[in-house]
Amino acid sequence: MPKQVNHEERKLIIAEATWKVIIDKGIEGATVRSIADEANLSIGALRHYFTSQEELLIFAWELVKEKVTNRILAMYETDMSLDELLVRFCLELIPLHTQSQAEMTVWFNFISNAQYRHHFQQDDGILLGLTNVMKMLESNGRLKPTIEREDETETLYALVDGLAIHCMFTPDRLTKERIIQIIVKHVNRILLFPLKPETFIT
Amino acid sequence: MPKQVNHEERKLIIAEATWKVIIDKGIEGATVRSIADEANLSIGALRHYFTSQEELLIFAWELVKEKVTNRILAMYETDMSLDELLVRFCLELIPLHTQSQAEMTVWFNFISNAQYRHHFQQDDGILLGLTNVMKMLESNGRLKPTIEREDETETLYALVDGLAIHCMFTPDRLTKERIIQIIVKHVNRILLFPLKPETFIT
Repeated sequence: MPKQVNHEERKLIIAEATWKVIIDKGIEGATVRSIADEANLSIGALRHYFTSQEELLIFAWELVKEKVTNRILAMYETDMSLDELLVRFCLELIPLHTQSQAEMTVWFNFISNAQYRHHFQQDDGILLGLTNVMKMLESNGRLKPTIEREDETETLYALVDGLAIHCMFTPDRLTKERIIQIIVKHVNRILLFPLKPETFIT
Repeated sequence: MPKQVNHEERKLIIAEATWKVIIDKGIEGATVRSIADEANLSIGALRHYFTSQEELLIFAWELVKEKVTNRILAMYETDMSLDELLVRFCLELIPLHTQSQAEMTVWFNFISNAQYRHHFQQDDGILLGLTNVMKMLESNGRLKPTIEREDETETLYALVDGLAIHCMFTPDRLTKERIIQIIVKHVNRILLFPLKPETFIT
């Protein structure tokens, strides 16, 4: 008897297939047909879950946000310092491993497609999260007294997204070590107690 | 008698038509047909100059680089200080006016399309130009003595590209004044003599 798979599980299987196709063939190759093939489903069965490619890509995009959010929320559960949390939060946004490279590919293609762009504008959870960490750092007296928090949040957010894009397109120039060095050096301008890059090189 | 238009002039007319179509309809709408319509040419005539849409987009991309490069080179011809040049160079890379918004749309769509990406990787003139300005600042004693130039070049490059993307997608949050404020504040961390944001608000 075939394994019973419920609706949500199957959606996840399809989403994972979508990832795999995007990694292998780019977003242009992420057609309903190629995703159905990867998920071992008929196109008809796939359409039961997603009636259009657009729906499927929006679902993949929602999954990106969920995955990134979950990884960041997991950091809050650890006993790392707020200072360290700030750096690890930033590093999480940079495509340093296969999973986050695929996520960034989806993100990049998503926002470069005008019809989806309002999704990006409407809920910028990354900026909210970064603002939150910066506020906690401030209220815990971890920022230098002269720091203007809002300016520094905007600057750090831009720096990290810029590094993310450069890392995606020129990974040979921007190694993980180099990115850690640049981010730590930058946050040390705003943190009262400087961090060491070695803390983040694993 | 119709005006004689030479080959290079017509290519430019086609390129301008390509821009207009990209601004109006996005890169997805920049088909050979819509560009031919905009340029008042038959598809056959257009194909005389560009045999494929890919060729046309690569030409549009080359034009982006040429336009940006020319605007930056024009700055070197003025009598502005190197410090001011650094900020104006950065501002030139951020889509603050219609022309640069269109250029950024082309850039963005270009690099998000994997088949064109090696063009982006091969000749990163922006990084070269920024490196050049930073070297001149250093050799003219305009950087703070503790500054590590290579790190700061990489940081500034990422900051500016991050701001460019955020400005493109959330222009309401990132006004011109806000961007000037953030860039000037950042470069004042590395410049020996601080600049005033007001210098750049016109």
